[in-house]
Amino acid sequence: MTPGRPVPPPLAHAVTPADDHDLEIARDPASRSARTGLLAAAYGAVSSDSGLVPLTLARRAPKEDDVEIAIEFCGLCHSDVHATRGEWGAQSYPLVPGHEIVGRVSRVGSAVDDFAPGDLVGVGCMVDSCRECESCLEGLEQYCENGMTGTYGAKDARNAGSVTQGGYSSSVVVDRRYVVRVPESLDPAAVAPLLCAGVTTFSPLRRFDVEDGDVVGVVGLGGLGHMAVKLAKAMGARVVVFTTSESKVPAALELGADEVVLSRDEDAMAAADRSIDVIIDTVAAPHNLNPFFRTLRRDGALFQLGLPSEAMPPVNPGALIRRRISYAGSLIGGIAETQEMLDFCAEHGVAADIEVVRADQLNEAYDRMVAGDVKYRFVLDTSTLQAPAEEADA
Amino acid sequence: MTPGRPVPPPLAHAVTPADDHDLEIARDPASRSARTGLLAAAYGAVSSDSGLVPLTLARRAPKEDDVEIAIEFCGLCHSDVHATRGEWGAQSYPLVPGHEIVGRVSRVGSAVDDFAPGDLVGVGCMVDSCRECESCLEGLEQYCENGMTGTYGAKDARNAGSVTQGGYSSSVVVDRRYVVRVPESLDPAAVAPLLCAGVTTFSPLRRFDVEDGDVVGVVGLGGLGHMAVKLAKAMGARVVVFTTSESKVPAALELGADEVVLSRDEDAMAAADRSIDVIIDTVAAPHNLNPFFRTLRRDGALFQLGLPSEAMPPVNPGALIRRRISYAGSLIGGIAETQEMLDFCAEHGVAADIEVVRADQLNEAYDRMVAGDVKYRFVLDTSTLQAPAEEADA
Repeated sequence: MTPGRPVPPPLAHAVTPADDHDLEIARDPASRSARTGLLAAAYGAVSSDSGLVPLTLARRAPKEDDVEIAIEFCGLCHSDVHATRGEWGAQSYPLVPGHEIVGRVSRVGSAVDDFAPGDLVGVGCMVDSCRECESCLEGLEQYCENGMTGTYGAKDARNAGSVTQGGYSSSVVVDRRYVVRVPESLDPAAVAPLLCAGVTTFSPLRRFDVEDGDVVGVVGLGGLGHMAVKLAKAMGARVVVFTTSESKVPAALELGADEVVLSRDEDAMAAADRSIDVIIDTVAAPHNLNPFFRTLRRDGALFQLGLPSEAMPPVNPGALIRRRISYAGSLIGGIAETQEMLDFCAEHGVAADIEVVRADQLNEAYDRMVAGDVKYRFVLDTSTLQAPAEEADA
Repeated sequence: MTPGRPVPPPLAHAVTPADDHDLEIARDPASRSARTGLLAAAYGAVSSDSGLVPLTLARRAPKEDDVEIAIEFCGLCHSDVHATRGEWGAQSYPLVPGHEIVGRVSRVGSAVDDFAPGDLVGVGCMVDSCRECESCLEGLEQYCENGMTGTYGAKDARNAGSVTQGGYSSSVVVDRRYVVRVPESLDPAAVAPLLCAGVTTFSPLRRFDVEDGDVVGVVGLGGLGHMAVKLAKAMGARVVVFTTSESKVPAALELGADEVVLSRDEDAMAAADRSIDVIIDTVAAPHNLNPFFRTLRRDGALFQLGLPSEAMPPVNPGALIRRRISYAGSLIGGIAETQEMLDFCAEHGVAADIEVVRADQLNEAYDRMVAGDVKYRFVLDTSTLQAPAEEADA
């Protein structure tokens, strides 16, 4: 082993492959047999306080409907931090996070005819669902009545109940039904965050049927918020950003916001009274929604996308009653909608504002995310992961 | 004055007429000149703790667009209690409540050609609005951007800024635009509550587009709740009533509910998980909505219609996010929708379950409403009001 390089944890940390096929450390995918899975280089947590460390994952060989993807980029979502740190309840470790995956198809299963090796593709927050319930049949797999299978940390019923492992990894194998096509015209690194932050904001904007001339409010200017600004602008809306921090005003305007309202300034909030059609609220900390309801027009809606770990202040139902306002939730988007969003982004030249990081910068990036110090999304360049093969040779 | 009869308060309590036309105490409307207003017998509050006492109101002579109505019945709404007791903020007194008015047209203004003397008509919660804003132009006058004019206790801009006085009265004069036609096929006393309780529950059911086979939940079984049950059944829905009190189960079933769930029974609530399409929540006291959200299916909605005077417990946004659920408000209904509701009720033979009371029972009826002791709406028979003329003769 080369001195000075980080020591990979023993293979005991790696996840058992979902089937009992042989594994192979293959530099040349073409040389592999169809029944052979990949060892993947990855970064993940081995406990709630381990931080992220190098890991090796055993990926299954593609089954007949599977697409094997050589990952190029993976976005860092705030929920990755919560999950790896066990802040959302008990977590099984090791855990490789990442659900904003962009890469190229390396192999496909025998029944896959919609993807071919070399295709640029993406995987978002889910890799399976029951495919039988009303939600699945309607293409709203994220609301699967039997529970969708998250891209990481979820029990994978169709793969021997193994735990899914995400995109901070050199490869992943996903059923073709949960893989989307990434337009070649966009920067693939900047596309990665679209798979979660993009579709999560796109979906409520579409559900509200935002169009030319509508006024969209965006609360919070992080990964989700900056996508909401870009997408709403691309839909032809006038965009008003609500922020608590004056320092974000220039950045919001630079992103395309038509107006920025300091939400702690009561006069400014009063001036915004009844001026907004729909609000996309991306703040995941408890905050008082009542002042925002007052900025909505009749039949307006506030979509809350972030899930605070503590209780929100009470909603004043009078604000909802007096203008027939809705306070609604929305969860990512379905697969078809994710594809629609990517096509929309290609058509309008929309992608995330990102900062690309190396694998060895992940822990620092997490700390900066928690501190809100990122414009607006970190993206892992997976070429900086150590190849398990090299480690084994070292 | 006849001994033993209640003493009417001095005319100083009466409201100044909105114009300076002569007033006349007329037993024979035909004998009155077109420019003469009516003195109306009424019951109202003269202070927040006076209770309801006999009053005399000066009603304006019909202006060209006005309809003068000889009131036959007026429903007692819980908001009448709050308003007369000053529980919703400062109130101008004297105050004659009542916004569930049914009566017959006695005179019309020169420009009125859609109503004629003898027509059975109704007036609900509003008697004017700006008629120019987007909401008014869309027939959603209840959401008038400039503030609708309530049927009582509101400043009446188009009538010299006088304060409107409601339907616990022998007559009322209302612009034709805010008068609806009451089908002759229904019991007029039982129609009165439709003008508020009926349309308030009809409107969200229609907005959610409830139809055959949908499942409607109704929280609370009072004036509004019992109408929600009847209307939802008439729309073809399966109806589930949520109540905290086991004693209401038989009454709910008798009204037509298909199922009753005791909302404090955690097992029963768990069994109702994801079974409801839309909930009409009529409870005006603070209560925890999160258990109800869990009973909603994906894309479900909970409409809160009652406005508690104290804060509601916090909403868990996770419940909204995980199933794309909406928590919405809704305020009565527009004039056109009120007419639609009355026609729907006539077609389906729907009216309120009522207990008719005399004027001298109003205070007792208020106490019983506060105690929840009414099935399901009190309606004042206005023929029991003392005619001012008789008082003057006594």
